[in-house]
Amino acid sequence: MIKDLKKIKESGLQLNMSRGVPSEEQLGLSVNMLDIIHSSVNCKTKDGIDCRNYGLLDGIPECKQIMADMLSVSPDMVMVGGNSSLNMMFDTISCFMNKPVVEGEKPWCEVKNRKFLCPVPGYDRHFGITEYFEFQMIPVPMTENGPDMDVVEELVKDADVKGIWCVPKYSNPQGITYSDETVRRFANLKPAAKDFRIMWDNAYCIHDLTDTPDTLLNIVDECKKTGNIDLPICFCSTSKITFPGSGVAAIAASKNNLKVIEEKYKYQTIGFDKINMLRHVRFFKNIEGMKEHMKKHRALLEPRFDLVVDKIEKNLVEYGIINYKKPNGGYFISVDVLEGTAKRIVALCKEAGVILTDAGATYPYKFDPKDSNIRIAPSFPTIDDLSSAMDVFCVCARLAAVEKLLNK
Amino acid sequence: MIKDLKKIKESGLQLNMSRGVPSEEQLGLSVNMLDIIHSSVNCKTKDGIDCRNYGLLDGIPECKQIMADMLSVSPDMVMVGGNSSLNMMFDTISCFMNKPVVEGEKPWCEVKNRKFLCPVPGYDRHFGITEYFEFQMIPVPMTENGPDMDVVEELVKDADVKGIWCVPKYSNPQGITYSDETVRRFANLKPAAKDFRIMWDNAYCIHDLTDTPDTLLNIVDECKKTGNIDLPICFCSTSKITFPGSGVAAIAASKNNLKVIEEKYKYQTIGFDKINMLRHVRFFKNIEGMKEHMKKHRALLEPRFDLVVDKIEKNLVEYGIINYKKPNGGYFISVDVLEGTAKRIVALCKEAGVILTDAGATYPYKFDPKDSNIRIAPSFPTIDDLSSAMDVFCVCARLAAVEKLLNK
Repeated sequence: MIKDLKKIKESGLQLNMSRGVPSEEQLGLSVNMLDIIHSSVNCKTKDGIDCRNYGLLDGIPECKQIMADMLSVSPDMVMVGGNSSLNMMFDTISCFMNKPVVEGEKPWCEVKNRKFLCPVPGYDRHFGITEYFEFQMIPVPMTENGPDMDVVEELVKDADVKGIWCVPKYSNPQGITYSDETVRRFANLKPAAKDFRIMWDNAYCIHDLTDTPDTLLNIVDECKKTGNIDLPICFCSTSKITFPGSGVAAIAASKNNLKVIEEKYKYQTIGFDKINMLRHVRFFKNIEGMKEHMKKHRALLEPRFDLVVDKIEKNLVEYGIINYKKPNGGYFISVDVLEGTAKRIVALCKEAGVILTDAGATYPYKFDPKDSNIRIAPSFPTIDDLSSAMDVFCVCARLAAVEKLLNK
Repeated sequence: MIKDLKKIKESGLQLNMSRGVPSEEQLGLSVNMLDIIHSSVNCKTKDGIDCRNYGLLDGIPECKQIMADMLSVSPDMVMVGGNSSLNMMFDTISCFMNKPVVEGEKPWCEVKNRKFLCPVPGYDRHFGITEYFEFQMIPVPMTENGPDMDVVEELVKDADVKGIWCVPKYSNPQGITYSDETVRRFANLKPAAKDFRIMWDNAYCIHDLTDTPDTLLNIVDECKKTGNIDLPICFCSTSKITFPGSGVAAIAASKNNLKVIEEKYKYQTIGFDKINMLRHVRFFKNIEGMKEHMKKHRALLEPRFDLVVDKIEKNLVEYGIINYKKPNGGYFISVDVLEGTAKRIVALCKEAGVILTDAGATYPYKFDPKDSNIRIAPSFPTIDDLSSAMDVFCVCARLAAVEKLLNK
């Protein structure tokens, strides 16, 4: 085992599996999108607006439609933004920091003990936003059905709890899709804070990787039934569909929420990049075109997910030192290693030239109390590199387990 | 006069001169930029970063260079953003609302009587941002040399005064370029608030329209001399160079300022649209290319400015009911009509089918105490339409003056 690791170190391997970054092959899938808008094409929307000029704060109608279809909502709930849904989430929290989302409530900057619920393990950039705005972040354990709703229902009795981060389909990092019951319980929440909001980051809404994809109950429809339509604020983007740096992002929310959010955007900008919206719409034509495109991503990603699972199955499962569940989509495989060994494994991997997401990153304040969760992002490396990287990972996981057992 | 107006009304004229919107011909000048990036070109930066993927929070190096050259600063002071400098200004104020720009100072949201200086007449969207964040806006009169610095120097003795909006070259709306003395007095300011900042919106830095363009002293260089390098935060964009909806914006600031601003952006996004940055850089090649391009804009804009001035000279000046100064660049011609007639003129024009910027819009809270300033934005209409629109304007200005005289 030690010998294996030594050999790998000497080979000078250098691999980065730390983030959910699409591979060069995946970028290649959208390269023809760059030919869509050129000097000889008409840059006008269906209703005759010149996308090159100022205007249309909420985006061009045809792009609102396609983003609405991604989120399975009505286009009048949608605003299309720039290239980053993370930016729209940040803008949303930032908005409510300074302006109350519910009339009569305090802006969150005036709520001294403001708190936010963070399902764990979760997405570090979500936690980063609420940490930046100085929320106390309260971890909520994930179950195989989504966040533990018993815990959520209890915690929202505190009026200082202002929201929760959710990646409801193929959650980051575990790839868990919230069960129907979980979504219904979210739709039925009765938080003490009138301005409590569910940040519903549907980042992987069409990112299926198997023939048996998960299905997610529509939170907006459920909230309509319960009269809680102001509760969820939904987000999506094409960052992992077209180009991560140059995609299109969108927000979907109720009339009341959108009013407060758009009131901010009205002062913030004259409008986002409409040419890029048009480029996306004309490339995909409609949601069906987008879903067809996702099959090409699946063809590149599925073998990588299979390989990761295969390596874990062959090299680690028999020792009982790892727990994981193969997801049906998304971007990550989350593993739980022996308690107290995650940091050590990540460090050992780094020494051997394999960069993983920092252990702890999937928890608020980067603190994983059990030091056991590791997020594996298999998209970026080539299959060969991924294979070597997983060999390194498996050796390091065993080595760390041995170290732990010897120290006992 | 009344007959002229009646004839025009019957003609069904419909023209919008309310905003500084480039004309279709101007958009056409950049249409070849849309051919720059296509499926067969390399999308890598000079140093090999794939612009299609995630990363590079502060923008691609070659775009930082060209934006730095626009602002005549060093690239290490620059961060390139999305398509809107207004958005970067909003983000900057929003940032300081929640995080102090100077360690130990309060974030502005905690400064109860926070105030911002607003040179008048000025840019309504600037005022909109500080109004949104509930600053008390204090008007500072503009002189032919820029804001009245005696007034500014007096007002900054109040520690609740946190900043000032400036459009230092070809100011919006008057087209005034700050004199060397004004810039030096800004560089020498000693505000009571350590976190006072000059929002230096250099929107028209290369937007010359005559053979005798104005020159603006470099605020960053002057502030280096006075040890006040943290005072200015500079902005520019290509919105009025390439496409208003799909340009590239940038911020330039000192190391201390940039640290606080980038700390925010680090949580806000993974990076802005790098493909669009690359598209711009490859289209212009360098600042010289950009300046050559501006000559084409001048060829379209200069005749429009000449026409506006010509109409005013021929139809209004002799009556002594208008004051204005022809600018050497920028996007607007600002006129001062008889006190108490601006609103009436804008209303009369509207009845005749010509939409002007709302009277008052050039003042905080949309309140022009003399009701005399009107901003004319001549870029968008065709020459023929502009000619008709100016005929309408001149008739309405005379009519409003007559009404005023009769009421006396």
